[in-house]
Amino acid sequence: MTEAWTLWFTGLHGAGKSTIANKLAEILRKNNIKAVILDGDELRKAVSSDLGYSLKERNEHMKRVANICKIISENGAITIASVASPTEKSRQYAKKILKRVLLVYVKCSLETCKKRDVKGHYKKSEKMESGFEHFKHGSLNYEEPKNPDIVLNTEIESADESVTKLITKLKEMGII
Amino acid sequence: MTEAWTLWFTGLHGAGKSTIANKLAEILRKNNIKAVILDGDELRKAVSSDLGYSLKERNEHMKRVANICKIISENGAITIASVASPTEKSRQYAKKILKRVLLVYVKCSLETCKKRDVKGHYKKSEKMESGFEHFKHGSLNYEEPKNPDIVLNTEIESADESVTKLITKLKEMGII
Repeated sequence: MTEAWTLWFTGLHGAGKSTIANKLAEILRKNNIKAVILDGDELRKAVSSDLGYSLKERNEHMKRVANICKIISENGAITIASVASPTEKSRQYAKKILKRVLLVYVKCSLETCKKRDVKGHYKKSEKMESGFEHFKHGSLNYEEPKNPDIVLNTEIESADESVTKLITKLKEMGII
Repeated sequence: MTEAWTLWFTGLHGAGKSTIANKLAEILRKNNIKAVILDGDELRKAVSSDLGYSLKERNEHMKRVANICKIISENGAITIASVASPTEKSRQYAKKILKRVLLVYVKCSLETCKKRDVKGHYKKSEKMESGFEHFKHGSLNYEEPKNPDIVLNTEIESADESVTKLITKLKEMGII
């Protein structure tokens, strides 16, 4: 079986990664294309409950996520990894171990993400609430990707526009 | 989306778990049923390279595997976990967190598994070769499952017979 592609979504918390991932997966499935979404927060609980949020531990978590993507991709399903992956190093690791990976930068300014603050994480982080001390590492020290394969600018595009743009790219590259 | 089932294969190393898992996945996919195989050895490298083989660490690894099954199942794909899972505790954990899980006991005597010794692991373990010290914990101290949902006895059934038996069970239960 041919190894399927991994779509590695990176971007700030609140940039719209999950929304786009879910809409995309729905369309792929309607077209009989197997797709598995891996959500960063879920995976934290699932396979990295032993890890904290130091740089070393964050990178270890990203390694595990990349490895899970690899296993699923080798099963022939497109894996949509919706993870903040704030460091260039973690994204490079994913690029290294996955033969077929598309780096999707879901771009939105920190200011707008803070305004949206869908889950209230930014507010909690500012108040230094327990459990959110780590948040600034992920979102406030986010390193912009240097060479994303595609940029979805959710500041100016609607989620549907971003999904359409991404699907066009996937078709162009023969991924779907 | 309805959560798909996890088929949790347990059994000694060499009992035939991977062979049956691969044959089953092939048939499911031919029938347009999404299936993802998770192999225990692969997952060790993928998400638990930090763990050793103490009882505590083995159970932690099994927890991570069960959680990955959960995420994939929630995406609607049947997950076939092909893991030794030698302790009753690890299997109970999988039963607890997965809403829909079928415990498949791939049964074969230790004597026959040793004779087969496809990868030479038993021999290496007996010679106490480096890297195989843990092996006896998994295979030599295997606890037989108390309440498997189905038993595939590979000592007397061919792999194809086991797969046919399993598919009949999956149909009976409305899993496929």
